[in-house]
Order: sequence, then structure tokens, then C-alpha cells
Amino acid sequence: MQNQHTQKIGFIGLGLMGKPMCRNLIQAGFELFVANRSAQPRAELAEAGATPLETPGQVAARADTVIVMVADTAAVESVLLGENGVIHSLKDNSLVIDMGTTSVTQTRRFAELISEKGGLYVDAPVSGGTIGAESGNLTIMAGGSEEGFDRALPILQVLGERITHVGTSGAGQVAKAANQVIVGLNIGAAAEALALAKAAGVDPGRVRQALQGGFADSRILEVHGKRMVDGDYSLGARCTTQRKDMHQAIELAATLGLDMPATSLSRDLYDRLIEDGGADLDHSALFTLLDIT
Amino acid sequence: MQNQHTQKIGFIGLGLMGKPMCRNLIQAGFELFVANRSAQPRAELAEAGATPLETPGQVAARADTVIVMVADTAAVESVLLGENGVIHSLKDNSLVIDMGTTSVTQTRRFAELISEKGGLYVDAPVSGGTIGAESGNLTIMAGGSEEGFDRALPILQVLGERITHVGTSGAGQVAKAANQVIVGLNIGAAAEALALAKAAGVDPGRVRQALQGGFADSRILEVHGKRMVDGDYSLGARCTTQRKDMHQAIELAATLGLDMPATSLSRDLYDRLIEDGGADLDHSALFTLLDIT
Repeated sequence: MQNQHTQKIGFIGLGLMGKPMCRNLIQAGFELFVANRSAQPRAELAEAGATPLETPGQVAARADTVIVMVADTAAVESVLLGENGVIHSLKDNSLVIDMGTTSVTQTRRFAELISEKGGLYVDAPVSGGTIGAESGNLTIMAGGSEEGFDRALPILQVLGERITHVGTSGAGQVAKAANQVIVGLNIGAAAEALALAKAAGVDPGRVRQALQGGFADSRILEVHGKRMVDGDYSLGARCTTQRKDMHQAIELAATLGLDMPATSLSRDLYDRLIEDGGADLDHSALFTLLDIT
Repeated sequence: MQNQHTQKIGFIGLGLMGKPMCRNLIQAGFELFVANRSAQPRAELAEAGATPLETPGQVAARADTVIVMVADTAAVESVLLGENGVIHSLKDNSLVIDMGTTSVTQTRRFAELISEKGGLYVDAPVSGGTIGAESGNLTIMAGGSEEGFDRALPILQVLGERITHVGTSGAGQVAKAANQVIVGLNIGAAAEALALAKAAGVDPGRVRQALQGGFADSRILEVHGKRMVDGDYSLGARCTTQRKDMHQAIELAATLGLDMPATSLSRDLYDRLIEDGGADLDHSALFTLLDIT
């Protein structure tokens, strides 16, 4: 393991998640090279001590480890394989870590291509949102070789608290898909249960309280159940993101011959909510689709 | 509040839940009068210090508080209103506590009838199963008047640990319905997520571990997720009970004009599992319906 203070990290994607993650890496003493489509966040991070660069390729040419944190699979593909992409100027024995939520099939393909270029690839998607990114306590689910994971670990430990090496390439993305499936379905569970309480004339806040500590208890009932009781659907995580992640899980399942009936139903409910104007609300707003009071 | 050692409690229904609950009440120093359809548990509890009686009516004639813990709404109706039922020999100012899982509408009717006879009625269904009944740490969700709840509380505290006065008559049963809806749907969530992991060639045990502490975490993922990973579907709680409770919640919702799409889908999946021979398995066996590996 290299000394943290001499290791050079590239970071591509300076959005709501990427920016605070970069700040935590700078704080931990890493030398940081950043790139982003828009100039404003680059300038902000330059002020915080990072070196701003124009393209993913330029970042890869300077860094030992390149972290990618962009919106979706298409954006990862462009950052890695595009005209000015990482792969064209990757240094020997570099490590690439994709921390976004990316298709499992494409992740396995990216890992192979990076490996053919002499690099290591780790998929390490996260859960915990912008709050987790800021406080450095993200949950991180990693896939890749032992060697890749061991090299990534000291960096991931700056960004997260619960870090699991789930399996080989793509396993982190599979765990993230599982995470999003459970989050969406547990939101639906809390929503139907609390809508029933309200419809029956019983205070949903008291019901939520009564269930805490029992078998119905969950992080979703605790956090998102409270949003339903309070009618406060500020973010959190967008309905559109929740819908996209569940749809991606269903698509993966379909390629494997697996039926996901509850996830499919929930995806359809999110479609209705988005059509009804709920796109930018927190995913707990599913409650508004069910509530009849 | 009466001195616990002189208060007379009647207990009707000495099944898997009732028997250990009775033992805890005897241990706490209450004088106990018991009745049950079959003789064997009556004899067992007589040995432990209870007074065995023949009918619910005989119990009501001797006790200040009558606890009912029987299989379903029809059984509660028979115990309370049947030929030798509680209502016909209820002493003035007696307290009746129904701790089973009973229809909300019928609970409100029973409460009214008992009240007309000068009694108090509290619905106080529980969560936590036979293990919770034995260790006296059931979760208890209570509905009824302040006066009824205050009188019931010292007794409930012997049987449970998290005791919430949710609202007026029926509110405990509404909370229990909400509990069962969430339990069933969270089982379905864990099942689809772990089936996806397995189908994608990733160790579901590692995925479950990776998700713990994050937003996907729940008591169900912890307890029932482990059963899915281990393929161990010993009880726990039966698929048939889970199915019945969700169906009862859907029926209640229908009378209120509320649609419960996810709960309805889950009830249908449990129907298929029961048809496939899963009736007596633990409700976590829903996983076997989805798993394709």
C-alpha cells in the first residue's frame, strides 16, 4: 500500500455525491485530480486544493487510482471508453473504481476492458445519499479481485463506514440492485400499512411508533415512514432514481430468466407517481399515491 | 390499581401463545382462572397453579380481567358471545382484553357489546411469536379507552416490553394489520433481492451482509433473510397465518375504499406457495417461490 499522502487519485463526476466525496479525500491527505463536464464544481474543488483537468483521459494520465461517480451506465461508458476516455491513457497497474449505480452486464464488460489494458477494476456503488457522502459514512458494496479490493480499501475507508467485498466484478452492482429493490419495496410496505391506518381513522404516527422494535421495524419505517407521517417529501432520493434503479434490476433479472413480480408492480406504481407530477419528490412520496384520506 | 397478588385474571385460549403467557402471569403473582377447548393444557396449567374451569362464562364469573387469546375472529365471537360466553356472566366493571389478531370491525362491535354490559374492552394484539410469549417481551399494540388501557397496563407489562396505546377500540388491531402487511411485504422484498443475487451468481449471504446498517436494513432482512440464505424454513410463523392476516387487512381496506396493490400481490404469491405445499413452512419460504437457482 502506498503512503496516502503521495498517492494520486483522479475523480471524475463532481455532482451532489462526487463533490463532498472529493472534499473528504482532500481532507484525508490524498493528491486529487478532478474532471467534470461543467466548470463550476471543478473551480470549487480547485479552491479546496484539487488539480482541475479537462478530460477523463487527462485525469487517468496523472492518477494511480481513478474514481468514477457519474449519473448512469451511458455516462460511465463515455468516461471510460469515449474519445477522451480513461482507457486511452491509463497508466500501467492503475486502479479504476466505479462508485455509481451501473448495469451489472456493462460493469463486467468494463472490468474486462480495463484489465486487458493492465489495470484493475472495482465496482463499488454506495448507499447513504448526499448526507452519507458528506459525513463520510456511506455504505459501500464492492465487486472485483482481492488485489483490486485491497488496493481500493484505504480509499473507500475515507468515504464510507460499512464496506463489504461482495464478490467478483459486478457483485457490488448486484448488491446495489438488491439494495434498491428492498428500499423501494419496503417504502411500498410502509406506505400501504400507514395508508390503511389513516383510512381506518387511526393516527399513522402512533402506528409507526407501535411497530418500532418489532418484526415490522426497518430503516425505511424509521426514516421514510416518518416522512409519510409528516407529509414531507423533500429529498432524500428522487422518485425517478428509485424507478430507474428498480427498472435496471428487473432488466438484469429478465436476462437471467428471473421473475420479480413485486419489484415490477412497484416500478409501475412509481411510473404512475412520476406521471402524476411526483418525479422530483423523495421516493417516500409513493404514500401519496395510496393515501385516500 | 389493585394489588397484583389479589387481582383475579381469567385466561381463555391455552395454545402455543396462551400457555407461556399464563405461566408468566402466574410467576408474576396473579391468581389465574383458565379455560380451553381441549383438556390437556388446562391440566398442565392447573399443575402450575391455575384454577381450571370448563367454559368462558365460568371464567368471567370468577375473574376481574378476562384475557382472550384464541385462533381467529370466529373463535373470539364464540368465546365472548356464544352459549357459555363471557358476556353472559361478566361481573360489573370487568375488563376484557383480546390479545389475538381479530377483525377491526368485529373488535369495535365486541367492545360496544361489552361496554353495554358495564365492562371495559381493550384490543391488545401482539407481535413476537412463541419466543416473545415465553420470554415475556412481546410487542403489544393496544386500542381502547384511557381507563381500559390504564387498567390493562400492569398485566400487559408482565407479557410484553414495547406496549403502545395506539388509539380507541380497534386501533390495536389496525396496528397489528399494519404490522402484518409490512412483515409480509418486507419478506417479499428480501426474497426478490436475494433471488436476484443468487440468479446473478453472487453469494446472497454476502449481499445480505453488505446491506446491513444501510437503508435496506430491516428486522426481516436480519431474521428472515438469514432463513432464506440458510434455506431453513422451520417456524417462526406459518405461511397460512401470514396469508390470513394479509387477506384480513385487504378486506378491511376494501370496506374503507382503499386499494392495497402490493399486499394483494403478496397474498396471491402466498396462495401459490400454499398450493405448492408450503402451508406449514415459515413465511420466509416465499423465497422458494422466486429462487430459480
